Amino acid sequence: MPTPRPSVYLDNAASTALVPAAAEAMAAAWALPGNASSLHGSGRRARRILEESRESIARDLGARPSEVIVTGGGTEADNLALKGIYAARRREDGRRRKVVVSAVEHHAVLDPAQWLADEAGAELVVLPVDEAGTVRLDVLRALLADDAESVAVISVMWANNEVGTIEPVTEVAALGAEYGVPVHSDAIAAVGHVPVDFAASGLSAMSVAAHKFGGPQGVGALLLRRDVACTPLLHGGGHERDVRSGTQDVPGVAGMAAALREAVSRRDEHTAQVINLRDRLIAVLTAGGHARVNGALGTGAGGSLPGIVHVSFDGCEGDSLLMLLDAKGVECSTGSACTAGVAAASHVLLAMGMDKATARGSLRFSLAHDNNDDDVTAVAQVIDEVTERARAAGTLSVSGAPTGGAR
Amino acid sequence: MPTPRPSVYLDNAASTALVPAAAEAMAAAWALPGNASSLHGSGRRARRILEESRESIARDLGARPSEVIVTGGGTEADNLALKGIYAARRREDGRRRKVVVSAVEHHAVLDPAQWLADEAGAELVVLPVDEAGTVRLDVLRALLADDAESVAVISVMWANNEVGTIEPVTEVAALGAEYGVPVHSDAIAAVGHVPVDFAASGLSAMSVAAHKFGGPQGVGALLLRRDVACTPLLHGGGHERDVRSGTQDVPGVAGMAAALREAVSRRDEHTAQVINLRDRLIAVLTAGGHARVNGALGTGAGGSLPGIVHVSFDGCEGDSLLMLLDAKGVECSTGSACTAGVAAASHVLLAMGMDKATARGSLRFSLAHDNNDDDVTAVAQVIDEVTERARAAGTLSVSGAPTGGAR
Repeated sequence: MPTPRPSVYLDNAASTALVPAAAEAMAAAWALPGNASSLHGSGRRARRILEESRESIARDLGARPSEVIVTGGGTEADNLALKGIYAARRREDGRRRKVVVSAVEHHAVLDPAQWLADEAGAELVVLPVDEAGTVRLDVLRALLADDAESVAVISVMWANNEVGTIEPVTEVAALGAEYGVPVHSDAIAAVGHVPVDFAASGLSAMSVAAHKFGGPQGVGALLLRRDVACTPLLHGGGHERDVRSGTQDVPGVAGMAAALREAVSRRDEHTAQVINLRDRLIAVLTAGGHARVNGALGTGAGGSLPGIVHVSFDGCEGDSLLMLLDAKGVECSTGSACTAGVAAASHVLLAMGMDKATARGSLRFSLAHDNNDDDVTAVAQVIDEVTERARAAGTLSVSGAPTGGAR
Repeated sequence: MPTPRPSVYLDNAASTALVPAAAEAMAAAWALPGNASSLHGSGRRARRILEESRESIARDLGARPSEVIVTGGGTEADNLALKGIYAARRREDGRRRKVVVSAVEHHAVLDPAQWLADEAGAELVVLPVDEAGTVRLDVLRALLADDAESVAVISVMWANNEVGTIEPVTEVAALGAEYGVPVHSDAIAAVGHVPVDFAASGLSAMSVAAHKFGGPQGVGALLLRRDVACTPLLHGGGHERDVRSGTQDVPGVAGMAAALREAVSRRDEHTAQVINLRDRLIAVLTAGGHARVNGALGTGAGGSLPGIVHVSFDGCEGDSLLMLLDAKGVECSTGSACTAGVAAASHVLLAMGMDKATARGSLRFSLAHDNNDDDVTAVAQVIDEVTERARAAGTLSVSGAPTGGAR
């Protein structure tokens, strides 16, 4: 019994609504019982849905079907890439201790990288970024020129989930290739929103999550080149090229494929719509002169995801702004995880050189093609009052925020 | 567009059909966008669905809500329990090297245990079973009496997925408690089919998979006592008590909760139906005197899952039987994973003392409450011809079997 959407949802980067094509593909797959590893007719039918979905995903991402390793989500894909490639490379040559990541990675990359340093003998190297959030290629180049043999794996995201900045992933992959170091990219914020071609990128591995482009939650994929060794995280049964065991979620993968097909085939049209709304939203947010746009979009240098508007408000707490907007029916995010009600400044913004107070006064609005002019108008109607009240409240921190990281 | 079920599906232990209550719960959750970690109204609503589902699952399994760690399936739950508890226990005391598992565990337990031995310094100890497949408690008792301080973790399944034998899990948990060793149980084949009470069992951890009791694929849980340390497999974001990071699949968890509610609330009724069908099926299969029933059900000693009938046919290859039955519209399984078309004898049957030839001539039929008399009649109509033809074909192995382990 679908309930009408009660508010203006401008947090699509955290999770999108399921698109009808995905819902239909999943319902069709659920109507048939079957485990894709079973040998009988129902099993073979489930296997066919799985493999056709895999082929569709591969086509839409410039990959081969055998390169698509289905996972239980983006975080699993990131963990598998970091830990699995590190373990395989280190086993081949014990000198390969360095795990190189950009300073603006999602926690699903930063945290396994930190874990490798804490528990598995890795040395964590964090690449700085410029004020737009773009990774410093010169630092990576110098690091590789100095001692590439000590590097196990490099991970730089395709586009940043908080500020929307598109990273020079092709250049990073080329540097990795030059020195024989595999490069992984968390493309979770990018896939479905900007062109992503795995083969053309030169990457060794790339993470995807379905619920960021209209597909279901709990399904993702690691795209993994056949020549890149990767130790499994999940053992038992030998599914997915022996890299990821576990009964495949056939309806979920069918839903991911259908959503991706829709997102890719209609991307030009959706991008035009979204950029149109974005520009109106930026005009609304910056009208009073109190908000600044951050990331590549703000500096005007480099590409940015079409749907993300990340802004800082002077003298406000982001959490206060978020809650006041929510009370007015406008849903957005601070773009950073909160812990036990303590507002923490985003590591992404700090890495971009922003001071703590400004970083804490920031909001992310993320648009999708199902947003419309009325949604921007709703923001326009409340933003002055909300920023005024947030400024009056000062820098009091809000309590009751749950733990856990919404992207 | 549901297609009518084309054949007689007697492989419910591999994967069940999604029950309508689960489909409805999922559709309702999908109608609302939202990431359960987001702070706004949509996020809080997603969080509410997640937490109410968690509470329902906990109630139905005799656990506390905070003990339910949502995972991407049963294999992930097993891997998390084995690797996570081993790592935490070993860090506390380096002498704790032993990982003790029964010989009849699923590969989702055996393979991570073997991996710990190969890659993480563990010593794998495999507990023998009797001819019914019941774990030898005397061997475990002697092992603990001899040197409990060397044991990191014990894992014994609640019920065997191939032959249906119910294991003395409560006794295993009591032995573990006596010696201060955490005990995990893979309860994936059991939950929804026999009474399972986590608190009463005395277990430290227990794995569950939704698609074995009418819920969706790709969703499971590890029940984990609060006082049992467990190192995460997936890092990033700190979801699920920091034990399992990754955006929760809110519709999937809602579907799991609804399916479990239905399975538990109607279990007496379903069990009576299923046992009735099972007894008819056994009569049909053993009528010619050519088939023997295996496991606790065959020996008459100990409990067995109501829906599983595991039989051996003299002079037949299980794969031939499976394919011939499939051609007649009857779907079952050999109960073991095949690799590249080579028929391998099940490790479960070999551990029970069965010779290789008999083990390879075995089939598992697994019934659910949505099977009916006609399904058994369909088996009765074809079984003589099929066994005759399989016997005539002798022990030729069938080709074209995919890799990967359907339970």
